[in-house]
Amino acid sequence: MLLKRYWSIKNITNNTYIYKTMTSYKKAINIIKNKESLLCVGLDSDISKIPHSLFSADINGLYDFNRAIIENTKEFATAYKINFAFYEQYGSDGFNLIKKTLELIPSNIFTIADAKRCDISNSSAGYSKSVFDSMNFDSVTVNAYMGIDSVAPFLENKNKMVFVLALTSNPGSNDFQRLMIDKKPLYEHIIEKVNNSFATENIGFVIGATHSKELNEIRKKIENNFILIPGVGVQGGNIADIVEANNNLPAFINVSRGIIYPEVGNFNEKVSEMALYYKNAFNKA
Amino acid sequence: MLLKRYWSIKNITNNTYIYKTMTSYKKAINIIKNKESLLCVGLDSDISKIPHSLFSADINGLYDFNRAIIENTKEFATAYKINFAFYEQYGSDGFNLIKKTLELIPSNIFTIADAKRCDISNSSAGYSKSVFDSMNFDSVTVNAYMGIDSVAPFLENKNKMVFVLALTSNPGSNDFQRLMIDKKPLYEHIIEKVNNSFATENIGFVIGATHSKELNEIRKKIENNFILIPGVGVQGGNIADIVEANNNLPAFINVSRGIIYPEVGNFNEKVSEMALYYKNAFNKA
Repeated sequence: MLLKRYWSIKNITNNTYIYKTMTSYKKAINIIKNKESLLCVGLDSDISKIPHSLFSADINGLYDFNRAIIENTKEFATAYKINFAFYEQYGSDGFNLIKKTLELIPSNIFTIADAKRCDISNSSAGYSKSVFDSMNFDSVTVNAYMGIDSVAPFLENKNKMVFVLALTSNPGSNDFQRLMIDKKPLYEHIIEKVNNSFATENIGFVIGATHSKELNEIRKKIENNFILIPGVGVQGGNIADIVEANNNLPAFINVSRGIIYPEVGNFNEKVSEMALYYKNAFNKA
Repeated sequence: MLLKRYWSIKNITNNTYIYKTMTSYKKAINIIKNKESLLCVGLDSDISKIPHSLFSADINGLYDFNRAIIENTKEFATAYKINFAFYEQYGSDGFNLIKKTLELIPSNIFTIADAKRCDISNSSAGYSKSVFDSMNFDSVTVNAYMGIDSVAPFLENKNKMVFVLALTSNPGSNDFQRLMIDKKPLYEHIIEKVNNSFATENIGFVIGATHSKELNEIRKKIENNFILIPGVGVQGGNIADIVEANNNLPAFINVSRGIIYPEVGNFNEKVSEMALYYKNAFNKA
């Protein structure tokens, strides 16, 4: 049973007009409850990896690829995460493709600008304008190393959500994120200070699926914040462990390569099948 | 006397063709020695702040503004820093403006993509392609919170330079960067681990001008790495203190608002005058 506890929103809707007027937090909870899915599909779209028998090996091919992925996963996905790194390498055309891809996403699905931005205050305000005003994402990933005042400009728009990097899925997360300060790792200090500085509905955290034990500990302290969980599939995070650790609390579990690059079979069918597989796996676990 | 010590490059050139074949490190040292200047001009160009009697209040106006700033400062500046936050808010047009602005910068001046990017390895590779292949910047600013493996892809091109955020100029730098681990602040752990992982010529650090005491300590340990020093002028960093702390070692001292937004006088003359003022101030101090 998905999201059985601690959910404050009562009136669940699937009316897409109403979604547009909701805060990102309410939208996210409504979508997850309606679709009974925690699946976020990561559009890590890469010209060298898309099947060239179906899509041209250029930026137009990437657009068609994204459209096909969205068409074949939108029944099961509650969120799409667009990783800016895969797009910016194509310059302004890539930046335009982010915006055009966003327009393909139905308004009853949550959107995450995986941009990992942050800077001093007036610069963070510029990045905030980019993802929230110029592009109208529901949320953005942010690196809080520069401090609370660098995160704050992203939250001047009280309707949006910011996912702050806490414990990331890569091996390098051991280098600095786990350094111990007063018997607590750095990432816990970041979670606490950020959470004490902003409203729960506006702040989520990124915890890699490769760290289920730590997620379990974090969930004992923060129940209502959204957690964005990347690293299932190719990166090796165990589904049963991470779902149990999350304890039915608000989360998106992201899968990118495990869905968008099927190794065999009919592309459209296989993408759809893998999205359904992960949706079910996150519920059963 | 500028840069009197510890400089390993002997054959100084001002030949712009040769600059194009040099590593970023050698190019930077050559330029600074030739021009006898540590001045980096920050192109934090903002439609709401450019003088509308001279420039249109749109993205074309920003381009003309950048051209005027470069024309009026290129005699004194050894580097230009383009802060991506000010451009991305205009979407793909803004991203295109970064590229077009880069083309205005003479090849005998160093360029810094102040993008503060970083992500897991294949994503960092995408950001690296963006700033180094798609745009051909000499260097990029990077946030190393995600660990050494997130920085590494930026250095696969051995000719380029990466400035890792250490102790930033904003008040929020106290929130996490100064947390003490084994009697050393977090930013020193980052400097040490990053410096031990990559070649000195490829790695610089960002230390805000508001932290001259700490820069002085850092300079006792790392002599040959470049330091990018923002925060002089509007942000309140004291010039004499920061120059003394840097001890004539490789550095760029950035000024943005203090040069590009003169409050009174003829715009072109005043911009040029302020650039010369800061160049001289950094040498005299």
